[in-house]
Amino acid sequence: MDKKQFKQFLTENIMILDGATGTELQKLGLPKGECPEKWVLEHPDTLVEIQTNYIKSGSNAILSCTFGGNSTKLNEFGLGDKTVEINKKLAALSKNIAGPNCLVAGDIAPTGLLIEPFGSLAFDAAVDIYKEQIRGLLEGRVDFFFIETMLDIQEARAALLAVKESCDLPVCVSMTFDNNMRTLTGTDPVTALIILQSLGADAVGCNCSVGPDGMLDIISAMKPYARVPILAKPNAGMPKLVDNKTVFDMGAEEFGSYGPKFIEVGANILGGCCGTSPDYIAQISEKTKALKPSPNIQSKFSAVTSSKKTVFIGDNNPLVIVGERINPTGKKKLQQDLILGNTLEVRRLATEQVDKGAGILDVNVGMPGIDEKETMLKVVNLLSNMVDLPLCIDSSSPDVIEAALRLYPGRALINSISAEKIKIEKLLPIAAKYGAMFVILPLSDDGVPKTAIQRCRLVEDIYDIAQKYGYTKSDIVVDGLVMTVSVDENAALETLEVIEWCSRTFGCNTIVGLSNVSFGLPERNWINSAFLAMGICKGLSMAIANPSSDMVSNLKFACDVLIKHDKSANNYIKHFAENNPDKKNKEHNIQKSPAQMPIEERI
Amino acid sequence: MDKKQFKQFLTENIMILDGATGTELQKLGLPKGECPEKWVLEHPDTLVEIQTNYIKSGSNAILSCTFGGNSTKLNEFGLGDKTVEINKKLAALSKNIAGPNCLVAGDIAPTGLLIEPFGSLAFDAAVDIYKEQIRGLLEGRVDFFFIETMLDIQEARAALLAVKESCDLPVCVSMTFDNNMRTLTGTDPVTALIILQSLGADAVGCNCSVGPDGMLDIISAMKPYARVPILAKPNAGMPKLVDNKTVFDMGAEEFGSYGPKFIEVGANILGGCCGTSPDYIAQISEKTKALKPSPNIQSKFSAVTSSKKTVFIGDNNPLVIVGERINPTGKKKLQQDLILGNTLEVRRLATEQVDKGAGILDVNVGMPGIDEKETMLKVVNLLSNMVDLPLCIDSSSPDVIEAALRLYPGRALINSISAEKIKIEKLLPIAAKYGAMFVILPLSDDGVPKTAIQRCRLVEDIYDIAQKYGYTKSDIVVDGLVMTVSVDENAALETLEVIEWCSRTFGCNTIVGLSNVSFGLPERNWINSAFLAMGICKGLSMAIANPSSDMVSNLKFACDVLIKHDKSANNYIKHFAENNPDKKNKEHNIQKSPAQMPIEERI
Ligand SMILES: [Zn+2]
Ligand SMILES: [Zn+2]
Ligand SMILES: [Zn+2]
Repeated sequence: MDKKQFKQFLTENIMILDGATGTELQKLGLPKGECPEKWVLEHPDTLVEIQTNYIKSGSNAILSCTFGGNSTKLNEFGLGDKTVEINKKLAALSKNIAGPNCLVAGDIAPTGLLIEPFGSLAFDAAVDIYKEQIRGLLEGRVDFFFIETMLDIQEARAALLAVKESCDLPVCVSMTFDNNMRTLTGTDPVTALIILQSLGADAVGCNCSVGPDGMLDIISAMKPYARVPILAKPNAGMPKLVDNKTVFDMGAEEFGSYGPKFIEVGANILGGCCGTSPDYIAQISEKTKALKPSPNIQSKFSAVTSSKKTVFIGDNNPLVIVGERINPTGKKKLQQDLILGNTLEVRRLATEQVDKGAGILDVNVGMPGIDEKETMLKVVNLLSNMVDLPLCIDSSSPDVIEAALRLYPGRALINSISAEKIKIEKLLPIAAKYGAMFVILPLSDDGVPKTAIQRCRLVEDIYDIAQKYGYTKSDIVVDGLVMTVSVDENAALETLEVIEWCSRTFGCNTIVGLSNVSFGLPERNWINSAFLAMGICKGLSMAIANPSSDMVSNLKFACDVLIKHDKSANNYIKHFAENNPDKKNKEHNIQKSPAQMPIEERI
Repeated sequence: MDKKQFKQFLTENIMILDGATGTELQKLGLPKGECPEKWVLEHPDTLVEIQTNYIKSGSNAILSCTFGGNSTKLNEFGLGDKTVEINKKLAALSKNIAGPNCLVAGDIAPTGLLIEPFGSLAFDAAVDIYKEQIRGLLEGRVDFFFIETMLDIQEARAALLAVKESCDLPVCVSMTFDNNMRTLTGTDPVTALIILQSLGADAVGCNCSVGPDGMLDIISAMKPYARVPILAKPNAGMPKLVDNKTVFDMGAEEFGSYGPKFIEVGANILGGCCGTSPDYIAQISEKTKALKPSPNIQSKFSAVTSSKKTVFIGDNNPLVIVGERINPTGKKKLQQDLILGNTLEVRRLATEQVDKGAGILDVNVGMPGIDEKETMLKVVNLLSNMVDLPLCIDSSSPDVIEAALRLYPGRALINSISAEKIKIEKLLPIAAKYGAMFVILPLSDDGVPKTAIQRCRLVEDIYDIAQKYGYTKSDIVVDGLVMTVSVDENAALETLEVIEWCSRTFGCNTIVGLSNVSFGLPERNWINSAFLAMGICKGLSMAIANPSSDMVSNLKFACDVLIKHDKSANNYIKHFAENNPDKKNKEHNIQKSPAQMPIEERI
C-alpha cells in the first residue's frame, strides 16, 4: 500500500485497528518476565488466535507483534542481534494471519531510553535503532508503519525519520498524553500534530493516554490543524489500582459507544489500547460501520513550533517578533563565547528576548573561524530545551541548516531560501524533507531586484518549485527585503508593496527585518517603528527585530489592537501592565503549570 | 459680458489691457494735486484721446478712469458724496470711447486706509466703500471689474466680495508685490492666487510691482496653481530715482519683447502699469498677436492658506497635523479666558502648537454661556495675524462659520459639513461663497454609519451636491470618523477602509481625529501613534491631534520619510535636530526674513 492508496482508503473508510495484544497473550499463557516477541514466535498459534479474532471483530488493519521489537528492548533479553530476524518473522506471521483483506502495520514503540539532552541516547543513534527494526518489518512485508505510545516527540521524530529514510510506505504516529494533555517531555497535542505531519507522518493521533473521555478532548484539539487523518486508540477507561494491579474496567459496550464520538470529533482510525480485547473492537466496529470518515477542516493556518509550543503566524494572529539578537555580527562578547564553546551570552540573549516578548528566536552563529555546524547544533540543542519559543534557523550553509533541522525537536522556520541556484537545488529539498516553514528571500543570483513587481515574480518562481515539494502558501513567509531608505527613497514603498501583494493577492505571510530601513538616519527607532506599523497595516505577519526595543514592541501591541489581532486588547493591556516598573518583579512569581516545569522535575 | 463668456474669450484670446493713464493725463495737462477723476470729467476729450490711442494700439479692454474713485479717495477732494455719479460718468465715458469692439473694466484700487488689525478700517466698512463705487461703475455699464494694485490681501478680498455681492460680472484681481515677492502685508504670489481664485476671482495676477523681469518670476510661481487666467500688468522697468522723480526708463520695444515671455510663463491678460503709454501697448500687442493663450497646468492640488502661507495637503506632501488644542472642551483656563474676553490662553496654545510643528490650527470656541460668534471673530482676528498657519474654522453653527470665513484673510478649512440637512442646506452655500475647503463628516441625520461602505456612500452623496456649488475633489477632505476601538473592535479597521477608499478609489484627501480611537485604553499615545502610522500608510493626508505629543509627531515625521513625502528626510532630520535638548534654545534666534517680520516693522 502506498501513501496515496492509504490516503484514499481513509478518505472513504474508517480504519479499525486491533486492540491490546500483550494482555491477550497473557490470557493464553505468556509468562511474566518473558520476551513477548520471542514467546510468540515459539507459540505462533496464540497470535493466530488473537489476531484472527480481531479481524473477525472488524479490524481492517492489525499491528505486528513488535512493540518491544527494537534492539534496545530485545537486548534486555539478549536478543538484540536477532532484531531483523525477529521483526521479519513476526511481520510475516501477521501478514499470513491477515490474508489479502486485512492490512498489517509494523508496530514501533519506545526504546525505553531517553534521547539527548534528557538522556544519553544520541538522536541519530535512536534513528539507527529504529532503522534496524524497520528493516526486519519491511522484510516481513508490512503494509505500513505504526509508531505508537510515544512519550517524547524527539523519539517519535527519530522513528518517523527512520521509516522515511527506509521506505516510502505510509506511517502513522501516535503519541501518549497525560491528564494535562502533555506528553512526558511536555508536548501538547496540537504541537505534536504539527511537528509530525510536517515531518511527513501520514496519520497522527494518540493511544493509551487518559481513557476515551480525555482522548476526545485531545482529538478535538488536534482536528482543526490536521492535514492528515487523525487516529485514536484509547485504553478501556482510566487505569485503576486494584490489589496493586493496574485495571481498566470500562466494558466493551461502553467503550464501543465512544466510536461515533471519535468519528464526530475527527478521528478516522480507531482501535483499542490497554484493557481492550476483540469484544471491544467488535463493539467499536459495529457502532461505526454506518458512519463516514470526518473530513479535515481545511483550515488554512501557518505555524512553527518548539517541542512545547506552537506559534501561529498571520491570519488574525498578532504580529510575531522574531528576536534577532542571537547573531554574532557586531557582538564581541557573543563572538568570543561561540569561539570558546561557551553558552553564557547565548543564554543571556535568549532569556532577554523571551522576557521582552519575542515570539520566535532567530539563531545565527555564522562567523569567520568557527565550526558553524558544530556550534549551531550546540546552540539549537541548548535553546530547544531552555526556551519554549520556536527557533528560526538562520545560516547561509545548507549543510548547517540540514543538521539543525534534523536535530530540532519542533517545526522550525528556515531563514532563508532565495532564488539562487544553490538554495533552490540544495536547500529546498532539505526544507521539504524536514517539513520546515521557510522564508522566501526574493533575490536571485542576479542580486536584489529594485522593484516590488520584480520581487513578486521571484516569489512566484520560488513557490512554483516549492509546490512540487509539497509546500503550500501557508508554509512559506516572504521577506519584503527592505533596503535603506536614506540610500533609496523608494526602499520602504517597494517593500510595503511586496507585503501588500503577498497579503492581498498572492495569499501568504510576510516578514521584514526592521533595522535595515533606517540605516544612516538619526533616531532610527522611530523609522523602524513607523515602518513596522505601516507593514502591519499592509498585512505584515512577522518582523525580525530586537524585541528589547520598547518602542517597536509597544507599537506592535498597539497595531495588533487596531486591526483586531488582539481581541479586547488583552495582550496590549497585559504588555503595559507587565512593563509598568511597579509590577515588573511580580512577573516571575506566577505559578508554573506542570507542563512548563523542567523535565527533570517531572520525570 | 458674463463669467462664462469671459472665460471663453480668454481660452481663445490673449486680452490686451491698456497702459498707464495718470502719466498720460499729466502729459495732456492734469495739474499736480488735482483729482484725476474730477479733472477727466471736466476734460473728457483727454481721456478720449488716451483711450482711443490704447484701442488703436491693440487694447481689447480698457480700464475706466476710476483708480481713485472710491469714496475714501474722493473725499480727499471733498467729492465722497459724488462717488456713484463720478464712477457712473467715467464708466459711461470709457464705454463710449470703447465702442462695441472693446471691453471696459471698472477699475478699483486701494482706499489708502489700512484694514483692521493693521489699521482702523473695519473689513465690512471696506466692503461697503467698494460697493458704493461699484454701484456707480455698474450704472455706467462696465463689462467687468478690475481690482488692481492691491497691497493687502484683506483689502483685495473686501473689493472682490463687494463685486460678488453687487453683480455677477467677471472680476480680475491684481496684487502688487515687492522685491521679496511679498505684498506689503506679507502675502506671497501663490497664497494670493489661491485665496483670490477660491473666493471667486475670474482672473488673478499682478500689476506695478517690480518691472517685467521680476514679474515673470511672480507669474511663473502662480501658474502651477492657477485655475483661472493669470494677468500681468508690469511697469516700464524698475523705478529709478532721477532728479528726485521716479522714472521708468525701459523703452517700448524692450517692454514689448516681454510679451511672448509672459505668455510662455502663463499670463493671458497683458497690459502696462507705471511708465507705459500707447507705444508700449502697441509693442506688446504686436509681439503677441500670433500667440495662443497658455492653458492652465491642470495640476490637481489641495491647499489652505493664511494671509502669509500656503499649506498643501495630500499628494506627495507630508501629513499635516491640525492642532486641536484651541477648543474649550475640558480646558478650565481657556474657558475662563474666553468668557472674560481674554486671549492669553489662546495665544499660549497657539504658540505652543506652532512650535510643536502643527501645520494648521483648529479654532473652536463653542461652549455654554458664550457669544460664540463674537468670540470666534476675536480669536480669528488675533490668530490670523499672530501666527502664519492657516486656520480651521470649527463650529456647529453655520452663522459662526460664515462670520469667521468672511473675516479670515486666507483660505480656511471648515470643520465640518455632514449630510445633515442643516449643514447641506445652510453651510454648504456659505462654504462655496467663501471658497473654503471643507471637511466632509460622513454622518447624517440618522447618525454615524457603522461601516466604511455606508460612510463612503454618504461622502459621494455630499460631494454630488458640493459639485453643484463648484467644488472639486481637491477642495474637500473626508473625515474617516474614527470611533473607539475599545468599544467597537472594528472601529479602526472601518476608518482605515474609508481612508483607503478616498485615497485610492474616490480620489480625495482624508483627515482623522486621533484621540478618539484610544479612549478607555492605557498608554493611549501608543494607540494614537500606531493609528496615525497605519492611516498614513493607507493614504491619510491630515490628522487632528495635539502636536505636543512627541510620540505622534516623531512617528509622523518617520512615516513621511518612509512613503517619500519627505525627500532626503530633510524634515525628519530637522525635527530631531530641533527637538534635541542641546539645540532647543537656538531655534528662536534664527534671523527672520522681512516677510516674516511683524507688519508694524515693515510699513
Ligand atoms: Zn495503553
Ligand atoms: Zn504701476
Ligand atoms: Zn519657535
